Amino acid sequence: MDTDLDDFRDLARTFCEKEIKPNVERYIANKQVDRELWNRAGEVGLLCLSIPEEYGGGGGTFAHEAILIEEQARVGDSSWGVSLHNGIVAHYILRYGTEAQKHEWLPKMASGEVVGAIAMTEPGTGSDLQNVRARAIREGDEYVVNGAKTFITNGAQADVVLTVVKTDPEQAASGISLVIVPTDTPGFSRGRVLDKIGLRGQDTSELNFADVRIPVSNLLGTEEGQGFIQLMEQLPQERLIVAVSNVAAMEFCFEETLRYVHERHAFDRPIWGFQNTKFKMAEIATEARVARSFVDECVGLHLEGQLDIPTVAMAKLWCSERAQKVADMCLQLHGGYGYMNEYPIARAWADLRVSQIYAGTSEIMKEIIARSLPAPS
Amino acid sequence: MDTDLDDFRDLARTFCEKEIKPNVERYIANKQVDRELWNRAGEVGLLCLSIPEEYGGGGGTFAHEAILIEEQARVGDSSWGVSLHNGIVAHYILRYGTEAQKHEWLPKMASGEVVGAIAMTEPGTGSDLQNVRARAIREGDEYVVNGAKTFITNGAQADVVLTVVKTDPEQAASGISLVIVPTDTPGFSRGRVLDKIGLRGQDTSELNFADVRIPVSNLLGTEEGQGFIQLMEQLPQERLIVAVSNVAAMEFCFEETLRYVHERHAFDRPIWGFQNTKFKMAEIATEARVARSFVDECVGLHLEGQLDIPTVAMAKLWCSERAQKVADMCLQLHGGYGYMNEYPIARAWADLRVSQIYAGTSEIMKEIIARSLPAPS
Amino acid sequence: MDTDLDDFRDLARTFCEKEIKPNVERYIANKQVDRELWNRAGEVGLLCLSIPEEYGGGGGTFAHEAILIEEQARVGDSSWGVSLHNGIVAHYILRYGTEAQKHEWLPKMASGEVVGAIAMTEPGTGSDLQNVRARAIREGDEYVVNGAKTFITNGAQADVVLTVVKTDPEQAASGISLVIVPTDTPGFSRGRVLDKIGLRGQDTSELNFADVRIPVSNLLGTEEGQGFIQLMEQLPQERLIVAVSNVAAMEFCFEETLRYVHERHAFDRPIWGFQNTKFKMAEIATEARVARSFVDECVGLHLEGQLDIPTVAMAKLWCSERAQKVADMCLQLHGGYGYMNEYPIARAWADLRVSQIYAGTSEIMKEIIARSLPAPS
Amino acid sequence: MDTDLDDFRDLARTFCEKEIKPNVERYIANKQVDRELWNRAGEVGLLCLSIPEEYGGGGGTFAHEAILIEEQARVGDSSWGVSLHNGIVAHYILRYGTEAQKHEWLPKMASGEVVGAIAMTEPGTGSDLQNVRARAIREGDEYVVNGAKTFITNGAQADVVLTVVKTDPEQAASGISLVIVPTDTPGFSRGRVLDKIGLRGQDTSELNFADVRIPVSNLLGTEEGQGFIQLMEQLPQERLIVAVSNVAAMEFCFEETLRYVHERHAFDRPIWGFQNTKFKMAEIATEARVARSFVDECVGLHLEGQLDIPTVAMAKLWCSERAQKVADMCLQLHGGYGYMNEYPIARAWADLRVSQIYAGTSEIMKEIIARSLPAPS
Repeated sequence: MDTDLDDFRDLARTFCEKEIKPNVERYIANKQVDRELWNRAGEVGLLCLSIPEEYGGGGGTFAHEAILIEEQARVGDSSWGVSLHNGIVAHYILRYGTEAQKHEWLPKMASGEVVGAIAMTEPGTGSDLQNVRARAIREGDEYVVNGAKTFITNGAQADVVLTVVKTDPEQAASGISLVIVPTDTPGFSRGRVLDKIGLRGQDTSELNFADVRIPVSNLLGTEEGQGFIQLMEQLPQERLIVAVSNVAAMEFCFEETLRYVHERHAFDRPIWGFQNTKFKMAEIATEARVARSFVDECVGLHLEGQLDIPTVAMAKLWCSERAQKVADMCLQLHGGYGYMNEYPIARAWADLRVSQIYAGTSEIMKEIIARSLPAPS
Repeated sequence: MDTDLDDFRDLARTFCEKEIKPNVERYIANKQVDRELWNRAGEVGLLCLSIPEEYGGGGGTFAHEAILIEEQARVGDSSWGVSLHNGIVAHYILRYGTEAQKHEWLPKMASGEVVGAIAMTEPGTGSDLQNVRARAIREGDEYVVNGAKTFITNGAQADVVLTVVKTDPEQAASGISLVIVPTDTPGFSRGRVLDKIGLRGQDTSELNFADVRIPVSNLLGTEEGQGFIQLMEQLPQERLIVAVSNVAAMEFCFEETLRYVHERHAFDRPIWGFQNTKFKMAEIATEARVARSFVDECVGLHLEGQLDIPTVAMAKLWCSERAQKVADMCLQLHGGYGYMNEYPIARAWADLRVSQIYAGTSEIMKEIIARSLPAPS
Repeated sequence: MDTDLDDFRDLARTFCEKEIKPNVERYIANKQVDRELWNRAGEVGLLCLSIPEEYGGGGGTFAHEAILIEEQARVGDSSWGVSLHNGIVAHYILRYGTEAQKHEWLPKMASGEVVGAIAMTEPGTGSDLQNVRARAIREGDEYVVNGAKTFITNGAQADVVLTVVKTDPEQAASGISLVIVPTDTPGFSRGRVLDKIGLRGQDTSELNFADVRIPVSNLLGTEEGQGFIQLMEQLPQERLIVAVSNVAAMEFCFEETLRYVHERHAFDRPIWGFQNTKFKMAEIATEARVARSFVDECVGLHLEGQLDIPTVAMAKLWCSERAQKVADMCLQLHGGYGYMNEYPIARAWADLRVSQIYAGTSEIMKEIIARSLPAPS
Repeated sequence: MDTDLDDFRDLARTFCEKEIKPNVERYIANKQVDRELWNRAGEVGLLCLSIPEEYGGGGGTFAHEAILIEEQARVGDSSWGVSLHNGIVAHYILRYGTEAQKHEWLPKMASGEVVGAIAMTEPGTGSDLQNVRARAIREGDEYVVNGAKTFITNGAQADVVLTVVKTDPEQAASGISLVIVPTDTPGFSRGRVLDKIGLRGQDTSELNFADVRIPVSNLLGTEEGQGFIQLMEQLPQERLIVAVSNVAAMEFCFEETLRYVHERHAFDRPIWGFQNTKFKMAEIATEARVARSFVDECVGLHLEGQLDIPTVAMAKLWCSERAQKVADMCLQLHGGYGYMNEYPIARAWADLRVSQIYAGTSEIMKEIIARSLPAPS
């Protein structure tokens, strides 16, 4: 198993070095990765890593997902929304989809023919999923989907969008369902790619649904009203993905900065020669090491099916905040260059800030953790 | 005097509301303000505010400069490098220039015909001014200027660049001079506008000097080797400008966020309805109030000529760090929208980060402060 | 006026140097100052500084109170509860007392014959003044006072205790009154002096009231039910006193530590020789300077009657938190000696911690500030 | 093994509950634990846990040491210096002692007949071990020991003191040796028990050595000049002990505070009812959980002999700082009671502060970590 993972890391590293690293600037200029990147990744086996082979996947585990996230971070890329495609969208289908749905979508997602997205957030609702206003109203054998979504990763490239809707708008949580919306369905349209502080190569978009008609067989699963439970079940893995990527980013920032402070001179010596630099680097190394310890424990627990919701909330809360702090310290050690987007540290600082917000804000994480604390007897 | 300042604030506010606010997005798209903005500002009397009227200036004080900085912040603009033009470049000329230099440049700077810049930083030297490598070597009645500068505010639009050079490359501090380089001089060229995390509408540029020949009368002042002293004397006002703008930014972020948390709803109530929001807003209000108190004291001292170098270093260190913290808290209260550049808070967060770096990094400020602490007897 | 204040500072400084500094250790051992300290202070004119001369006071202002607080901090004393006696207890009597009450108590408080205390907090109510359970029930010409108070500064030495009670237990805020309880009244008793982390020389005590009968003329003022309003009006000055003392403590910690890091050697050089020390001292100096600016502005506003409740809440919140941070940094620079009570920095660290709690916790301050923030129109 | 550890935890917990918890106040009043506590602990097998059975020890591992540290923390005790005796002093003898030394001292340390201490720090040298001034000069078959030590845990009760001296005062590190000084040797004397901010029940003392004559066989090991290496080798375990105790303290503070905020009411509801309380408790829980993850990983590495010096420095740096932060947040949630020594949280806050200082300050930890960072190739 460990050998397998080592081999896989080699594969992932080579791919990231060759296929991604030279193109990062173009992704940012285009506000999206090259569409073919998905296909190439599919060819070498980097998509749907932890989906069983019978559905075209890699047959691996979350350990493989984590490795790809780390290797992507290592080349300073934040544009490619592969961890969402692999670790989230595909898993909704795998876990809740009918056999027909799995066979329809997963092989294409594994090959890169289809790019997946998931649409939860709406203008005005933010983290409050119970109050989504998008709706899918059944008419005969179809659902008619109407609504607007925003902040959708892979929004511009997605071929299929898992869409969180109310199938019963009278109900709160129990009225929520997920429906599978192919993006070539009439009535579906994409808004602009959002202009974000960071993740500038990621095609985060607004999506619109105007009388989009899909067959009832596109309900994810077989029963309406399961959406909220599905979201609650899948959000932990989504949050763990954020935490894993944050720790990888910390390590990337540390490496970049360690090299910089050795190379760069000021006042006739390398910046490394100042005690302040040494102390900051020691603090950064410690932050990264501690976060690594925790996230590795969480990944281990997750692989055993033992990672509970409040613990993953802690991982997401912690890693996102500390990664920002680390990036901020690293940026400062770069001086003026730290503010220039051509330096990876500048991009990392701007990219990371969203981690305290998406997949549930830090405030939501604290609510989740607080609710889990036992009332003393 | 206070009435005068109130009138001036009205003028500045009206100008910023009418001439700047509607155009901020375009400035960012163009990576520079409209060139005519300078001329319009000159027409209504917003340039060279604290330059005597005999040189075409407004005849005001630093209090006027501070007001314009505040009003610019109030409309969320960070693109227009007017505080550099007004508060720094013009003052070098006023303080050290010959009468001929003053009469040549200041009226044009006051009208907007000429935009000014000052070029200190070089690729590779950062805050270490004693080791600048640009040089102006005297040949007959001319200086031949060679070198490269970077991170130059107003770099793309400047018509005149005060350039920090070694007139005697053998010397350290005492070999430094400033020379006045009109940007239409052969051999002068501009590099690209730098791609920065923030201040995206500011034309921060690289500049190149290749055998640029200027008359010896373009030495700022009449004596070579005075540059380092001039820089040391002027940096305090530059740093105070940063601090003033940071406090204005804090107040702007506070206002934006207070409105947002009242308007925005989550979980069936305004975000303001959560104790966490109230506590954060109380912290933000306190941060801004404390910084305001300190910066106002510093401005008062400066107006009396009593502001010393370590105190202004404290102001710059403090205000730049706290402004970033305030912007970060405000961004978080905006949730996902805080990460979108269409929200002013997102831009403020990205803009402010450079304040801990330029005009001397926080680390340089600490060195300055530490050096000033009295050894106990 | 300024000359007067300078002279007064000399007086206060001399007194603190001669009468307090040599005795601090004994105060701590005894958990209270020497009772005669009050009388000596009265003799030289250090009591009731801002009480009019007609009542035996010094006829000064809050500026005098602030100076005494600063000079006390300068000798590292936290045992003597003079700022409470002078700045709080006497002012309740001055502001709300009848002429008879003022003439009865203020001259004795000014001479040191009577030590004053004020009893608000009860076991179990904390900052929630509306729910005090102590009561003073009128029976004929007397009030019968029952209840328990805790955390009472000057509790062991007080000769008179302004006691917050319900005169109408059915009412919330409007049932609250203050009554003047001489401590030789039968039924009054003192519990133990509390064992606190710091302020170990301060006689913070529990007080008990068991059928304590006082004449109705001992109601503070002439009307029942005014207590809550009186508290709300006086708490700002109490909080400003805390803020002033916090800033004085920061300056004291800074001075102590600056001397220490120059004197002390480690690894063959003074601790001052390390960049980390210099940076920390620069940060400490900056913290103290900024807080000084704000508290001085607040004192100025208070002298003009312009200091509002939320601003003083900011001062108290801010100064108490930053003072603790400063003390913590200073302690660390002392190494092992910073943990030894014989070093003033150790005591300062432990003393200061209560400032975030008493006179309204930081959380209460945030509530007050938040309530004052204007709803946007 | 795990069963063994569970059983051992039961034993340790019962002992701490019965023998320590009821007596904590007395220890503090006496500035030391009861001398018989050591003997009782020896009887039930709580001393020398990780010393082989052939020397009278428990034959366990560091896992046993960690459990005892945790169980001691759980009852809020910081007085008993058992982790030093068990985990440090005994291990110096085990690792470096001759067979004769091991047989002489370890069985008595395991029974509680002998209490051990180790004396490194001197007045004026702090963390700078290479410059110790105590010396042991050989005269015939004896060493004559002279010098002064301070901050010595178990100083008042120790029967044997491992003393760091120069056997060759001309040399720096290579002149250092450890000698075994029985405290009944003429010339040895104890100074006062130091008056510390916290750890008030711990008999931290000054020690004096005036012509103390010990046989040459009391050199620890057989060769002079090995002391510095011995210290470097043993400090990691000492630092890990600090980190383990810090994490245990965090968990203790969390438990105490969670109970308090549920029990305590303010403004008509339990403190738990406020969002601020919930968020702070979530942050505290997260801090403790993350630190637990890291320290457990470190303990695991140590059990495998894989814990390197910079990693343990990170653990000590991190856990000591975060434990203080946790204690501070917990104290604040207690309001005024948090400042009263009768509440365990108050003692914990004051106790923990020394952890950033002893066994190497945070600054020393940063130096160690920084030195270990690889120079980029």
